[in-house]
Amino acid sequence: MKAQRVEMFVCPSATPADTSGLQKLADAGKIKPDTLVALVGKTEGTGAHDDWGRIWADAALREWTAKFLDVSKDEVAKHVIFVLSGGCPGVITPHIAAITREWVEVADRRQGDEKRLVVGRAGSDAISPEEVGRMGMIRKVATATHEAMKDAALSDPKDVHLVMVKVPGLTTASIKDAESRGKTVVSHDLTFGPEGAGVYANDAAALGVAMALGEVPESKLADDVVRRNWDLYSEVAMTSSGGEKRHGEVVVFGNSAGSASPLRIGHSVTRDFIDAEGVRNALRAAGLQFKDGLPDEKDLDRLVHVFAKSVIPGSDQVRGHRITLLDDVHAYEIGKALGGMLVASVTGRTTNYVSGGERNSHQGPPGGNIVAAVVRAES
Amino acid sequence: MKAQRVEMFVCPSATPADTSGLQKLADAGKIKPDTLVALVGKTEGTGAHDDWGRIWADAALREWTAKFLDVSKDEVAKHVIFVLSGGCPGVITPHIAAITREWVEVADRRQGDEKRLVVGRAGSDAISPEEVGRMGMIRKVATATHEAMKDAALSDPKDVHLVMVKVPGLTTASIKDAESRGKTVVSHDLTFGPEGAGVYANDAAALGVAMALGEVPESKLADDVVRRNWDLYSEVAMTSSGGEKRHGEVVVFGNSAGSASPLRIGHSVTRDFIDAEGVRNALRAAGLQFKDGLPDEKDLDRLVHVFAKSVIPGSDQVRGHRITLLDDVHAYEIGKALGGMLVASVTGRTTNYVSGGERNSHQGPPGGNIVAAVVRAES
Amino acid sequence: MKAQRVEMFVCPSATPADTSGLQKLADAGKIKPDTLVALVGKTEGTGAHDDWGRIWADAALREWTAKFLDVSKDEVAKHVIFVLSGGCPGVITPHIAAITREWVEVADRRQGDEKRLVVGRAGSDAISPEEVGRMGMIRKVATATHEAMKDAALSDPKDVHLVMVKVPGLTTASIKDAESRGKTVVSHDLTFGPEGAGVYANDAAALGVAMALGEVPESKLADDVVRRNWDLYSEVAMTSSGGEKRHGEVVVFGNSAGSASPLRIGHSVTRDFIDAEGVRNALRAAGLQFKDGLPDEKDLDRLVHVFAKSVIPGSDQVRGHRITLLDDVHAYEIGKALGGMLVASVTGRTTNYVSGGERNSHQGPPGGNIVAAVVRAES
Amino acid sequence: MKAQRVEMFVCPSATPADTSGLQKLADAGKIKPDTLVALVGKTEGTGAHDDWGRIWADAALREWTAKFLDVSKDEVAKHVIFVLSGGCPGVITPHIAAITREWVEVADRRQGDEKRLVVGRAGSDAISPEEVGRMGMIRKVATATHEAMKDAALSDPKDVHLVMVKVPGLTTASIKDAESRGKTVVSHDLTFGPEGAGVYANDAAALGVAMALGEVPESKLADDVVRRNWDLYSEVAMTSSGGEKRHGEVVVFGNSAGSASPLRIGHSVTRDFIDAEGVRNALRAAGLQFKDGLPDEKDLDRLVHVFAKSVIPGSDQVRGHRITLLDDVHAYEIGKALGGMLVASVTGRTTNYVSGGERNSHQGPPGGNIVAAVVRAES
Repeated sequence: MKAQRVEMFVCPSATPADTSGLQKLADAGKIKPDTLVALVGKTEGTGAHDDWGRIWADAALREWTAKFLDVSKDEVAKHVIFVLSGGCPGVITPHIAAITREWVEVADRRQGDEKRLVVGRAGSDAISPEEVGRMGMIRKVATATHEAMKDAALSDPKDVHLVMVKVPGLTTASIKDAESRGKTVVSHDLTFGPEGAGVYANDAAALGVAMALGEVPESKLADDVVRRNWDLYSEVAMTSSGGEKRHGEVVVFGNSAGSASPLRIGHSVTRDFIDAEGVRNALRAAGLQFKDGLPDEKDLDRLVHVFAKSVIPGSDQVRGHRITLLDDVHAYEIGKALGGMLVASVTGRTTNYVSGGERNSHQGPPGGNIVAAVVRAES
Repeated sequence: MKAQRVEMFVCPSATPADTSGLQKLADAGKIKPDTLVALVGKTEGTGAHDDWGRIWADAALREWTAKFLDVSKDEVAKHVIFVLSGGCPGVITPHIAAITREWVEVADRRQGDEKRLVVGRAGSDAISPEEVGRMGMIRKVATATHEAMKDAALSDPKDVHLVMVKVPGLTTASIKDAESRGKTVVSHDLTFGPEGAGVYANDAAALGVAMALGEVPESKLADDVVRRNWDLYSEVAMTSSGGEKRHGEVVVFGNSAGSASPLRIGHSVTRDFIDAEGVRNALRAAGLQFKDGLPDEKDLDRLVHVFAKSVIPGSDQVRGHRITLLDDVHAYEIGKALGGMLVASVTGRTTNYVSGGERNSHQGPPGGNIVAAVVRAES
Repeated sequence: MKAQRVEMFVCPSATPADTSGLQKLADAGKIKPDTLVALVGKTEGTGAHDDWGRIWADAALREWTAKFLDVSKDEVAKHVIFVLSGGCPGVITPHIAAITREWVEVADRRQGDEKRLVVGRAGSDAISPEEVGRMGMIRKVATATHEAMKDAALSDPKDVHLVMVKVPGLTTASIKDAESRGKTVVSHDLTFGPEGAGVYANDAAALGVAMALGEVPESKLADDVVRRNWDLYSEVAMTSSGGEKRHGEVVVFGNSAGSASPLRIGHSVTRDFIDAEGVRNALRAAGLQFKDGLPDEKDLDRLVHVFAKSVIPGSDQVRGHRITLLDDVHAYEIGKALGGMLVASVTGRTTNYVSGGERNSHQGPPGGNIVAAVVRAES
Repeated sequence: MKAQRVEMFVCPSATPADTSGLQKLADAGKIKPDTLVALVGKTEGTGAHDDWGRIWADAALREWTAKFLDVSKDEVAKHVIFVLSGGCPGVITPHIAAITREWVEVADRRQGDEKRLVVGRAGSDAISPEEVGRMGMIRKVATATHEAMKDAALSDPKDVHLVMVKVPGLTTASIKDAESRGKTVVSHDLTFGPEGAGVYANDAAALGVAMALGEVPESKLADDVVRRNWDLYSEVAMTSSGGEKRHGEVVVFGNSAGSASPLRIGHSVTRDFIDAEGVRNALRAAGLQFKDGLPDEKDLDRLVHVFAKSVIPGSDQVRGHRITLLDDVHAYEIGKALGGMLVASVTGRTTNYVSGGERNSHQGPPGGNIVAAVVRAES
């Protein structure tokens, strides 16, 4: 029978346009045109809307991938999903993780075997501007999440440990379009501020994942819970939005008994902004069963990658004491940097995928954040 | 016989001018006009040269203390040393630690008793502008450190775990003064950039402590090692500088068998910017002998306070991977914030004293930072 | 008969807490406890919500004024209106303008006399959280504006050239209060971002002035025009908001034939962000009838003060070319700084009152800004 | 006889990588492979050392130009000089100015004709790290300036109105190289702070131009006047530095009787940071002889381009009043933005080349800045 075999390779980037790590993987035969399914990375730059580091990285990676796949640049998105998160403040090393999936023949289904990493992807139906940040988006992302699970051959939501989603945001043009048709939009604020269209889009996408996985019942969902009822959230959704997109894209990572991968994924959530134990729990969930509270270097050698959010808490209290982060004009950058430190202080390395900086989110519980870890199984 | 009894009380501040925590301590009789020896705190604000949060805090605390001691504002400095570090980015709660010292009658010297916290202070001779950041400052700080040790009744440098120093920096006026007398100054850059007068002053002060404690032999010290030879450093000096000062001020914290304090101090250094184990080592050094790698909540209940530096590394490599912090226009703020996270992720609280943000320092080893912890002894 | 005599004195500030300029005015008898009606100033600091420079300035000025008036600090607001605008980026000199009003006996009404400066003030009814940024606030500010005009003895809106308004904003607490009573609030965003409660409050206040002065007919006003229909605006309203307030405060400046002041006020609006001619037009409107396009130094000697807004345009086009200011993470500070330069390049001095930085406003026309000038009449 | 004919075309850029404006010029035959001599532009981005907007722009423009010239990317620099200044804060429109030079046959030398624009260029000898910011660099830039004047057929320094220079800066690697050879370097500070290697390089280059043009006699020049004696400066040098370079590049713009260009250039300096008249003087110097103090729109229609510096003053006083810009953590960005406003408020457009932000410079007099204007001659 055929089984998925998923691999993940982390390449540090010397500049935003550095494709040399990918080229080496290609030259070594580790990634192939027909196995490469996603590039997920952190790019250096401001992390803002007009982060030219991220935009240049996207252009350079897309050009490299087009050549690698021998397709036109416009066709790349059909074959490989790009998730580039801009901004590497502090101790986040700019890097690209290449994810491959191939189908291998396995002798037979092995009873009692450990579940291993699988990946699946799907695009959503077109999402109109008036649906952004609202039930329309929630439902379409939920549907796409189901399809991506199917593509990954995952049926039990408990086996899903990370869902990366990209959805359309709003732009001046798309707002004008919606309003010309007599529709309203969720916000006129195009920033990532607390009432910004970008965070509404991200949060509706997260609730879409939560709905698909049964983390939140559909009956509790409505336009007006988005960014209002923080008790509704997903523990596995990492979402982003961009004005230029018209469809959602979903990549699901989970573990399956039918996988022939050498990797496993697990996840956890931090209980608050300084909860290093939450990060360690994600490592444990992925299969690093370290003793004495702390992973040792041999344990950490098996750690392939960590994906973490670093959403700023909505409250100015951490364990009963006031912090001033919410009033900081650089909160977005500092919030992301702090998540990078929390993860690096546990993993002992700086090549972690940490995105965030926004205030409050349905990605993870109030005050806490999602952490997913991919670990190489002990042979 | 008489013995020192030192206490330390940490009061979170609601605003820079908040003296209510101190007033409560005064009302409860915990701090008295003749026992209060130092106020050491983190104040919210930009952390920059013209940080009005810090400047306002200084004015408000000085006014409160003058009333409390019943002396004029100008006299306060003779009785109580103020060390206010501006900037609480991220997860650093603004707070003031009040340190008291009283002399209590103890029955007798108890053989084999654990050493306990003592504190001592001293002022240096006047430091001229041409001495700032050079051997003149190094020697005067070294002398004052010896005097502060004497005041603390400490003779063995190994018993010294934290030396806080404030020295004069340079100003436009003091540079003009020096040059009018035919002298040169160490830098015309009044910023805290890598060639700024402020960091030269801080680093000469740190080398002064290192000389006093024998961490660096005097024979290796010279004007041109300051901010050049990073192999010379103190593991216990936390220094700051201000243009308005003419003398250095030194506060020494150590452990002594002759102390009747309920507290102990210890210190360690982190080996690099993400080294949480270095923070845990400081807790261990102070007497928290936690098992299984991590302190539990009962252990942490005994932790009174942590003092840590968060100097940015001079290299852009952390454990073999590139970080972009050195190129970040907000590196000063982010560097400080990251140290706050590293400490908070270990102590489980945000009321830690963490100063820093500058690049490279003789305060701690290259890439690493100093952490000192004060712990309540088990009764 | 009795006539108003209004004077205005501009004192540069050496620090946020500098009251020496006011003290000199007091010592010289230029300001008296019963003539001081307002202190309007620019304070150095971040200009942000938690700008400790502004907050310290407020505390220090209030303390000074309480002593000067011989009233308690809490009573100061009943006698003297404080308008402190934080942030002096670029070429804006921190300063305080003291405004005095006394009643002098004049022989008789002089036919054909030039109108001169008068000032009037009024408080509004309490404004509830659910009214902030909505019709409730608009109407209450309109009523208070009418009362302040009456206090100034101004009846014709054309004689009104500057209306400074302070209104309540929203806070976490006031939002909770409103929602606990089943009410909604205009925004949950407590920033000054484009959907922030602060700008909604400022803009409703501006529309209240516009309604009072007939610049916008009441029939065109409704909750949903605030920050939506930019064609509705005032040409004389400069407004600010603060969470701690419960009432609005209004100060009206205008010219009246019944005034015995040596000063005149005038205003104009710039047509776009780089329109220096708009600034010159304000000077002309106040009575500087310079020839040859540019005021000479003798003309400018008669200029007492300029009050200008520097609201960032809502569009990224200035005279047909794209600017990147709207995407700039420091747009708030830079936008304010640019207004300061535009004014200083015309007035030849840096002690101008320039507030702003927010994006889009009903204070002035789309893309343009309000400028008011006070000039000493030729004797 | 043959005469130079120089043209200048200003293309706004929609993104850093936008080459569409150049392509249109090429399609229209306005720029040709053998006439294009320089691309001078402002690119959007942070303006910092690692400004990915500028770096991407450089890559994209170099790629476009290589194709246009039909040479390899590495060869481009031999044919076309690139001067890209990063950072468009405020009202500076990102743009590229293409400068062409061709040799046309003219009937005869016309007596009494107005001098017109010429351009010349030259490379310097290799500049070693130990020469950066010192006499070695000054002399090599002076020599190259003379050669570029010769290339432009300019012999009288009074005819030179703008000299753009790019020189090597220092890097960690080049410092190591120099020190390994027993040499010292001017600074270990790689920032653009007041003691940064970048500003030393820029300022030595400016003094090199000043030496070549006789603005400063060679006898007054020495290593220790650089960034010390501000009375030595050029009124026409605009310089920049980059770590990757080994040679200096010089482009000279001037007016010559032997030119067949339709353009003229002129320059002036502002006397301080708010001196709009200084900008107008540059326009006048280039030939816009407007009446009544202000250019009208017809005058401005003839204005082709403005090149201005916006160096922050070394003093905190502007016309006797204190400004806080020197203490501003964002001074670099704000200083540049303010220069952009000063120029735009005069030219009525935002497509001006304005670079700067550093504190103090030998590019222009203390507190003032250089402004050069290119005007289309009246036909």
